[in-house]
Amino acid sequence: MNFRSDNEVGAHPAIVEAVSRAFGAGPVFSYGEDAWTQKVERRLRELFEKPDLRAFPVATGTAANVLALACCAPPWGAIFCHPAAHIAVDEANAPHFFTGGAALAYVDGPAGKIDPKKLAGALAEPVYGVVHHPQPAAVSITQATECGTVYGPEEIAAIATSVKRQGLKLHMEGARFANALSFVGCAPAELSWRAGVDVLSLGATKNGAMAAELVIFFTPELARDFEFRRKRGGHLFSKMRFLSAQLDAYFTDSLWLSNARHANAMARRMVAGLTALDGPSLLYPVEANEIFVVLPAHMHDALQEAGAQYHPWTSDRPGERAFRLVTAFDTTQEDVDKFLSIAKAA
Amino acid sequence: MNFRSDNEVGAHPAIVEAVSRAFGAGPVFSYGEDAWTQKVERRLRELFEKPDLRAFPVATGTAANVLALACCAPPWGAIFCHPAAHIAVDEANAPHFFTGGAALAYVDGPAGKIDPKKLAGALAEPVYGVVHHPQPAAVSITQATECGTVYGPEEIAAIATSVKRQGLKLHMEGARFANALSFVGCAPAELSWRAGVDVLSLGATKNGAMAAELVIFFTPELARDFEFRRKRGGHLFSKMRFLSAQLDAYFTDSLWLSNARHANAMARRMVAGLTALDGPSLLYPVEANEIFVVLPAHMHDALQEAGAQYHPWTSDRPGERAFRLVTAFDTTQEDVDKFLSIAKAA
Amino acid sequence: MNFRSDNEVGAHPAIVEAVSRAFGAGPVFSYGEDAWTQKVERRLRELFEKPDLRAFPVATGTAANVLALACCAPPWGAIFCHPAAHIAVDEANAPHFFTGGAALAYVDGPAGKIDPKKLAGALAEPVYGVVHHPQPAAVSITQATECGTVYGPEEIAAIATSVKRQGLKLHMEGARFANALSFVGCAPAELSWRAGVDVLSLGATKNGAMAAELVIFFTPELARDFEFRRKRGGHLFSKMRFLSAQLDAYFTDSLWLSNARHANAMARRMVAGLTALDGPSLLYPVEANEIFVVLPAHMHDALQEAGAQYHPWTSDRPGERAFRLVTAFDTTQEDVDKFLSIAKAA
Amino acid sequence: MNFRSDNEVGAHPAIVEAVSRAFGAGPVFSYGEDAWTQKVERRLRELFEKPDLRAFPVATGTAANVLALACCAPPWGAIFCHPAAHIAVDEANAPHFFTGGAALAYVDGPAGKIDPKKLAGALAEPVYGVVHHPQPAAVSITQATECGTVYGPEEIAAIATSVKRQGLKLHMEGARFANALSFVGCAPAELSWRAGVDVLSLGATKNGAMAAELVIFFTPELARDFEFRRKRGGHLFSKMRFLSAQLDAYFTDSLWLSNARHANAMARRMVAGLTALDGPSLLYPVEANEIFVVLPAHMHDALQEAGAQYHPWTSDRPGERAFRLVTAFDTTQEDVDKFLSIAKAA
Repeated sequence: MNFRSDNEVGAHPAIVEAVSRAFGAGPVFSYGEDAWTQKVERRLRELFEKPDLRAFPVATGTAANVLALACCAPPWGAIFCHPAAHIAVDEANAPHFFTGGAALAYVDGPAGKIDPKKLAGALAEPVYGVVHHPQPAAVSITQATECGTVYGPEEIAAIATSVKRQGLKLHMEGARFANALSFVGCAPAELSWRAGVDVLSLGATKNGAMAAELVIFFTPELARDFEFRRKRGGHLFSKMRFLSAQLDAYFTDSLWLSNARHANAMARRMVAGLTALDGPSLLYPVEANEIFVVLPAHMHDALQEAGAQYHPWTSDRPGERAFRLVTAFDTTQEDVDKFLSIAKAA
Repeated sequence: MNFRSDNEVGAHPAIVEAVSRAFGAGPVFSYGEDAWTQKVERRLRELFEKPDLRAFPVATGTAANVLALACCAPPWGAIFCHPAAHIAVDEANAPHFFTGGAALAYVDGPAGKIDPKKLAGALAEPVYGVVHHPQPAAVSITQATECGTVYGPEEIAAIATSVKRQGLKLHMEGARFANALSFVGCAPAELSWRAGVDVLSLGATKNGAMAAELVIFFTPELARDFEFRRKRGGHLFSKMRFLSAQLDAYFTDSLWLSNARHANAMARRMVAGLTALDGPSLLYPVEANEIFVVLPAHMHDALQEAGAQYHPWTSDRPGERAFRLVTAFDTTQEDVDKFLSIAKAA
Repeated sequence: MNFRSDNEVGAHPAIVEAVSRAFGAGPVFSYGEDAWTQKVERRLRELFEKPDLRAFPVATGTAANVLALACCAPPWGAIFCHPAAHIAVDEANAPHFFTGGAALAYVDGPAGKIDPKKLAGALAEPVYGVVHHPQPAAVSITQATECGTVYGPEEIAAIATSVKRQGLKLHMEGARFANALSFVGCAPAELSWRAGVDVLSLGATKNGAMAAELVIFFTPELARDFEFRRKRGGHLFSKMRFLSAQLDAYFTDSLWLSNARHANAMARRMVAGLTALDGPSLLYPVEANEIFVVLPAHMHDALQEAGAQYHPWTSDRPGERAFRLVTAFDTTQEDVDKFLSIAKAA
Repeated sequence: MNFRSDNEVGAHPAIVEAVSRAFGAGPVFSYGEDAWTQKVERRLRELFEKPDLRAFPVATGTAANVLALACCAPPWGAIFCHPAAHIAVDEANAPHFFTGGAALAYVDGPAGKIDPKKLAGALAEPVYGVVHHPQPAAVSITQATECGTVYGPEEIAAIATSVKRQGLKLHMEGARFANALSFVGCAPAELSWRAGVDVLSLGATKNGAMAAELVIFFTPELARDFEFRRKRGGHLFSKMRFLSAQLDAYFTDSLWLSNARHANAMARRMVAGLTALDGPSLLYPVEANEIFVVLPAHMHDALQEAGAQYHPWTSDRPGERAFRLVTAFDTTQEDVDKFLSIAKAA
């Protein structure tokens, strides 16, 4: 009953198998001149219906985010994000490092989403071209958000309108993009570039890969310096086939979507069970694979005793204890049901 | 007949197998709190006979080098290296990036090795504490060097003497450390900290891994900020087991040494064959798994026609065409012999 | 009637005269080895009753702030400040640049002052030593604040208590420190290190100098790398006498305090006149030399027509137009009275 | 008899007077929106016969150099310079800092000048577009050089040819540009943009100012981000009139040239006297205001005893003691003659 994190689970067998095969395939060109890497880009162009997109594999989500942002903001720029964003809270100032010193500016909003009106107001401040002020350069939104909610295409478009009006760039942090896409049920293009996204960090690691992420530029001119930045950051793999073989398998037979669908379904099953009980209450709507829930003390104690694993979380309401449960591509129905039955018994 | 690079070969089956097993092992703590990572550090403490060393896995050689150097040099520091060093030539200014702007200073010497007398002279310049001048902070040597030669323990110690006299730090870039160790035939400690090395970037990728390197601090206080630097560089893996399982297998049953021994043996076999012929001449002594050789035009043409693959190199002597041949853990005796027979026939 | 900024006024004749004399004095050692520079540090040690303080002249307030902060926060650190702070709003990301990529974190509070309870809460977050999170490193407060208010010694001490509890450093941005000191009427030590300040950026430019600021370390070990940072930032003057002669004159015969006293008195006179009228209302208490005031439209129009100069400001209350008036060491009583009579007539 | 440095002398009375006048002129717009600053740019456009040049005052030579270079080279770029260049030796890694981590690459040549053939060879290396290698971005030459020699227009043009062939930028470090110009005797345009210079750091501090330098972009599109970079570096003066009034006086009535002419004449007088003696020998031709000379021990001792001041220098020839003598705008004929008579007597 591990619901601690989708970072703690193993990898999908099809991905492990693809990597094994790739490394048994004898010598191939290094640094991305191999067939897997080229195939992944081709695949993404079809999948996202965007024949000129550029896609680059990297190994960590932080690398994907900050290399993408570095292509969007100069050192004197400001990147707007939600105060709970991974780039603000969980990347040890990597965004500042890779941009050469850009600032983060915060726009909050409920359930982990940037409030589009507040954003419009913030971006309308008369600071453009004034050398004293950090120059608004990009907006970064997280999909699914750090609160487990999902931006719909029209919500993205509302944000993009403010962004484009000022000539800025829109970045989507998509460590859980597949979970969001599965929730919305639209085409990948609808949830990204057609809604105004310029560059997407698309995650695979949390959704069944070993270590593989993509930086996808829908606005290809932003990618101009990307390869220098990736190399200079130490993020260019000599045996790139490791990353690309994972990603190739990830998109084969819609594995990314079936993995995400399963994780989301397990989250919904958990939510259905919990909300049927007396006591638990959700902090946010559950739209992807993360559940933020207040549990009564006796219920939490019983679950802990039974070995259920999950993280404490912060509730704004005093006296309450909140927790985060995360489901993954390999979460079993049995584990969910066992969790629920213990909760129910408590 | 691929002799292009040890970056282009696959991975050793024992390493591939170890990774597969690790990812089938169910949930484990993320970000290095797993059993493999802890075991690798323990193993290295025994292997290097240094119970207080600190060891950190990363995925690329550039990351290993520059994270190590960033722990040794302040932004106003100078890092001394050979002008042919990987950190000078092949890392797109990553050393400058990760140190926050330290400079590289060059000390040359024959066959890719820093001349210890020139180094002593350079480090004796009266610049210490003078705010105008970059402050000497560290020396970085490559083992095996970019010319395929190997520093013996006493050569390292001669360099270390100058380094320590000034209170600087000694970094060893060991992407091919196993090949060097196999050539010298001493204990790992003799070729590293006992000779004065403070921090070692120890490579596995070129010697049978998929993507795995280590930063090993023999002077553990240098590691104080390492984990912040690794995270901030985007080099902390959530599913760290990927890196650690490879490294665990790499050191199991001395796989690292048997792989290196084989690669070196194949290089020696190649050299023996080539030097027996009329025409080829070596640029440098062949001590590890790289051969830098001048080939007569007709010999080169015949080899190319037969499909042999290797890189052109720069010869200082006009009119000559030099080439680099690299052997690896999986180079076959058949390929070497085939290469030699074609050369001989030509 | 220029009330636009204390940056727009000239310089005090005693300071101009001191610079002229210094440059007519023949050759002296460069880069700060001159008598003026040494005298300034000695003077400050007496003035602040702190015999081990270190003091370094620089030419701009931004340089003073960011060089000070760079000595307090590592690249993975967070610096807490008010969202209206000069370092957040008016320095084009110089703090990020000079710290090598530290983040700013915001703690608001009324009238430009950090709320000490909110700060205590923010600094108590369990992020210390966790590599994912920016590491709290320093708190920066502005004295006088960007709203023209002043922290009293006990208010500084309340902040310092939270700061010291976590082992962080307290920076004071004192571009208008003299104005604040004049308002409080205590000893310089009471308003700085005795209240817990580790490093002070002390301004002279806005208070009668041409271009001169000081970085004063009350915690001298923080200054260890300062001189390398200053040089590397291009902020070490060869003819340092220019900066030091100004500062020497600034502290001679308490010029800094009489200048500030005058500017503050002019502000108080302006406030007394404005609040006696029907219409104007203050946004914040006026404690130094800045007045933030809502003016009725007809009053503003009449003042503009008469040639009065001052900046528009942002009011939070809809429908109101706010303005900033700044007095300086050379503001005349006549100008203030003329301004008031026009306002009264309107 | 101070021949230590042109940084140690005072300032020309006309410049001191201009600054005094400027600061007595009442309130003016800050941050460069004043009349002096605008006039300086207009003057330079005429003086350099380049109506579209952009000129920006800063206070130190290091700031001028590194802000200029930051506009020419990306963080993954390489800047080629002579190993003795000020930017390599005397700026504490400021070039690396302001460029965000670009590398310096060295091309030597006799008497402080880059050898144009070696440069052509270095720039022809096939590294362009290859992500592993630092990307050649700019060449920086010093005028007059650190050896007191001067590049003629045709020498600059020879370098510029290689630079332009590869699409790089040519920077001239002109802390002693006036001395060089005075030596060559051509129009300023001939020694700068007509010979291929894109951006010039033009010094005034060493030639009679208090603290004033200019960054002059002859290729105006390079200046696009300059003002953000200057502000972010803490180099934007609020009371900009201080810098601009100096520069205005510097170019009034050709003061810059008469100052330089005088300094050069004093150097030539010194050289004529020294070379007439038995014993002294020059390390380099004396073309500007710096003399590098080997002095016999007894002569040096006699001069020291008489209170002559000058710096020791490094001679490549063993057993010799070399020294640097610098003349300035205010060096007197009496001091030179006194120096020579002591040397002669010795």
